[in-house]
Amino acid sequence: MSDSAPGRAVAALRSHLATIADLRAAAAILRWDQETLMPPGGAEGRALQLATLARLAHERLVADESRRLLDAAEAAARGADPASDDAALVRVTRRDLDRAAKLPAEFVAEQRRVSAVATHVWREARRTNDFAVFRPHLEEVFRLARREAEYIGYAGHPYDALVDRYDPGVTARELETLFGRLLEVVVPLVRGIASRAGAVDPAVLDAGFDEAAQRTFALEMVEAFGYDTRRGRLDLSAHPFSTKFHRDDVRITTRYGRRLSAVFGVFHESGHAMYSQGTAPALERSPLAEGAGSGIHESQSRMWENLVGRSRAFWEYAFPLLRRAFPEQLESADAERVYRAVNHVEPGLIRVSADEVTYNLHIVLRFELEKALLTGDLAVRDLPEAWGGRMRTFLGLTPPDDTDGVLQDIHWSSGLVGSFPSYTLGNVASAQLFDAARRAHPSLLDDIRAGRFAALYGWMRDHVYVHGRKFLPSELLQRATGSVLTAEPYVGYLRAKFTDLYGLPA
Amino acid sequence: MSDSAPGRAVAALRSHLATIADLRAAAAILRWDQETLMPPGGAEGRALQLATLARLAHERLVADESRRLLDAAEAAARGADPASDDAALVRVTRRDLDRAAKLPAEFVAEQRRVSAVATHVWREARRTNDFAVFRPHLEEVFRLARREAEYIGYAGHPYDALVDRYDPGVTARELETLFGRLLEVVVPLVRGIASRAGAVDPAVLDAGFDEAAQRTFALEMVEAFGYDTRRGRLDLSAHPFSTKFHRDDVRITTRYGRRLSAVFGVFHESGHAMYSQGTAPALERSPLAEGAGSGIHESQSRMWENLVGRSRAFWEYAFPLLRRAFPEQLESADAERVYRAVNHVEPGLIRVSADEVTYNLHIVLRFELEKALLTGDLAVRDLPEAWGGRMRTFLGLTPPDDTDGVLQDIHWSSGLVGSFPSYTLGNVASAQLFDAARRAHPSLLDDIRAGRFAALYGWMRDHVYVHGRKFLPSELLQRATGSVLTAEPYVGYLRAKFTDLYGLPA
Repeated sequence: MSDSAPGRAVAALRSHLATIADLRAAAAILRWDQETLMPPGGAEGRALQLATLARLAHERLVADESRRLLDAAEAAARGADPASDDAALVRVTRRDLDRAAKLPAEFVAEQRRVSAVATHVWREARRTNDFAVFRPHLEEVFRLARREAEYIGYAGHPYDALVDRYDPGVTARELETLFGRLLEVVVPLVRGIASRAGAVDPAVLDAGFDEAAQRTFALEMVEAFGYDTRRGRLDLSAHPFSTKFHRDDVRITTRYGRRLSAVFGVFHESGHAMYSQGTAPALERSPLAEGAGSGIHESQSRMWENLVGRSRAFWEYAFPLLRRAFPEQLESADAERVYRAVNHVEPGLIRVSADEVTYNLHIVLRFELEKALLTGDLAVRDLPEAWGGRMRTFLGLTPPDDTDGVLQDIHWSSGLVGSFPSYTLGNVASAQLFDAARRAHPSLLDDIRAGRFAALYGWMRDHVYVHGRKFLPSELLQRATGSVLTAEPYVGYLRAKFTDLYGLPA
Repeated sequence: MSDSAPGRAVAALRSHLATIADLRAAAAILRWDQETLMPPGGAEGRALQLATLARLAHERLVADESRRLLDAAEAAARGADPASDDAALVRVTRRDLDRAAKLPAEFVAEQRRVSAVATHVWREARRTNDFAVFRPHLEEVFRLARREAEYIGYAGHPYDALVDRYDPGVTARELETLFGRLLEVVVPLVRGIASRAGAVDPAVLDAGFDEAAQRTFALEMVEAFGYDTRRGRLDLSAHPFSTKFHRDDVRITTRYGRRLSAVFGVFHESGHAMYSQGTAPALERSPLAEGAGSGIHESQSRMWENLVGRSRAFWEYAFPLLRRAFPEQLESADAERVYRAVNHVEPGLIRVSADEVTYNLHIVLRFELEKALLTGDLAVRDLPEAWGGRMRTFLGLTPPDDTDGVLQDIHWSSGLVGSFPSYTLGNVASAQLFDAARRAHPSLLDDIRAGRFAALYGWMRDHVYVHGRKFLPSELLQRATGSVLTAEPYVGYLRAKFTDLYGLPA
């Protein structure tokens, strides 16, 4: 931060925004506590406290003072290197303010109210398999999503205005092209795998693995990846998540289930957490101290979980350590057997327990339905049928009920329309970034095989993590890999890995 | 809350103050996390977040809007029953605003800065037994305390302006009278006990009691007292404390040490916590949703810890349960032996580990030194000598160093000048309130002997907890016991209990 007048204008904006960042960090701490430790009685007071923090942060963001400070900082940063922190701060803040200014305060409040009620009703509807009770609330959610798209504006599809909240710059058209290419590869792959269903045996994962030992093993692994537990911690929650309070306090949670699921959950969340811990200290307490977008964030969770954690190279390193943790369960196993088991493919009804190959089919399904609900081409009352139809087409399965069908995800009830594609964008970007890291470090797989993750972590830190939210996802990928998002590394990865695993014709 | 115009004016004030309450609750959650679970890396970011929350709460309190809303509410509540919630809200808010308005913003900021540095230096000085390095910081603290007293104003002693922060309405003169009466009884009692030192044997507490079992036993007891763990939880921290986020989320912490110290720590904190859980729901998120003062709050922690937890009646009930938790350690013990052991008296250097009889001597010592430092009758450089002199007078001991002498407490470095008397006020009030409860429920001791605490808890809830901060400590005591604070129930309690325990001449 320079002491010149232009430097002072940017510093004044930063200082104003730091208060907002602190309020959001406080809210993140309150939410973390709510999900991990809060006693049952705390729910009501906590909701009020969170609402107050959100309101104060929003009021400060849309205050006249923000615009005044931003105008001054923008003038001051004119001519600065677009890659500089100052230029990026001004650019990103302008984007945030413009988006916020387009949404009337009453609309934002209505959206918040509707989704609070919808989430509540959804939980009950899911528990009792009662889509009818949820239907009017989902209609409200999509009605508001349409209005939001109109307020924000869009050139092509209304979806563009919504997906931009999660992955700035991404459009429905781009997603259609991307998903089209994925289907070309994945659908025949799934068919081939189905014809060789017995080729991969997951049974080794069915021996009971106790929680404490899973926890110790998983923590040992992610500390080797690069997650710094002196600046984080691992706790238990109903739904695993990662949350950042500050780059030096980034926490993850997991839950314990079948088939070493806690281990892969921890790998996944550690990817998010390393991103958050690796953001440049200079960006802290500013709008730049976040990730470039949900898809890029997800690229890191999925890279460490799948491209590393489900790789043959990794298990050649990790198997002896896993066996040390579970000597009885793994007495007669070997690295190859575990590697194969953790990559078992099986079409299922539930997105969150899907394997690497079928996962994206769950996303395409949701993307298509969201688009149609948004334009009115599909009515909410016809949603369960449409869901079932696509389930049969994509995965060959018929949901026995709505609980394991259209009611399975929390996203829509929470008002997160347009967020599902981030998961697939993450998968695709993970392979593109991994490939780029491998070009820079040709011995990367040998490193992993030897339990050395520093080159991979260092490359990701320097090309992704440090930049925080300075660049758009497309810019970040261009700078890091020399290309905007492309499906080829990812489809190549899937095809090679699963063709080999299932002994399919090349 | 009525719908009339006067009702609306009070409601508008309440709504404004609710935001401040939420900000303070959020800060309490951040501090709780900091003391219990925060990874080491989190310290820097957390300090900034806490500073932001404190600043926003303070800004909102001293904003013109507060005064405007208060003026309107005051006019609206004129003529209301002084004991009504509305009248109390207006009265207490006026007191808070007047006090806040007397302190210039720069002064408050300077105080915060000085005590942050002083606390940091104190930790190191205490560790290395180096009073000289702490001395200039302590001089600053007392210089600012003097200025604060001048800003606030006082009729008698400058101490009055400071103690008022903790125990509204209490004066140095009253404390001198109170402490004088205590010394009349306690000094001969300590002398008598010293002459019969072997009469009480604490050895039964030296058998190692493991942490998990102490925790389970202590929780079982405080749940019986009335602490609701569905609206609270117990965690570990370096220094035990109780903290309220909302009346339905009130947490306690403890640490594990020798002689069942965790058990008594939990009893103590549960007293604070029951007070906080028992405040009337209608007072929530207002300045009334706190205790009447530090002394009254402390009366509850000390009552449950000492008047209940160290009573013969309690151990007649609890001993079998303690033995079930520790069958080997207590194989040959009985209720009377444990009762005597937990009441062993021994003059010591350290306040926080002092027994019931000698504890108040530590407070008188600090009170006298604080007063003299404040008026300049004592210079900070002469403090260690003055400390040592009073230690010899009151307790017959000579501190071997400053670490276990003048550097033992965090209070002064934190700027808490005038807060020590609360501990003794709490002791005194605990006996006065307990006596009043006994008058209302003559079978109270028999109830305790049978493990029934509902009558005692219910009386305290109805006469103390529900009122929150509606009444001044003296008003609260008058309403609850029929008398302002008086030392007689407490000195009577001490004399009777320890004369019996040590077999002293009556």
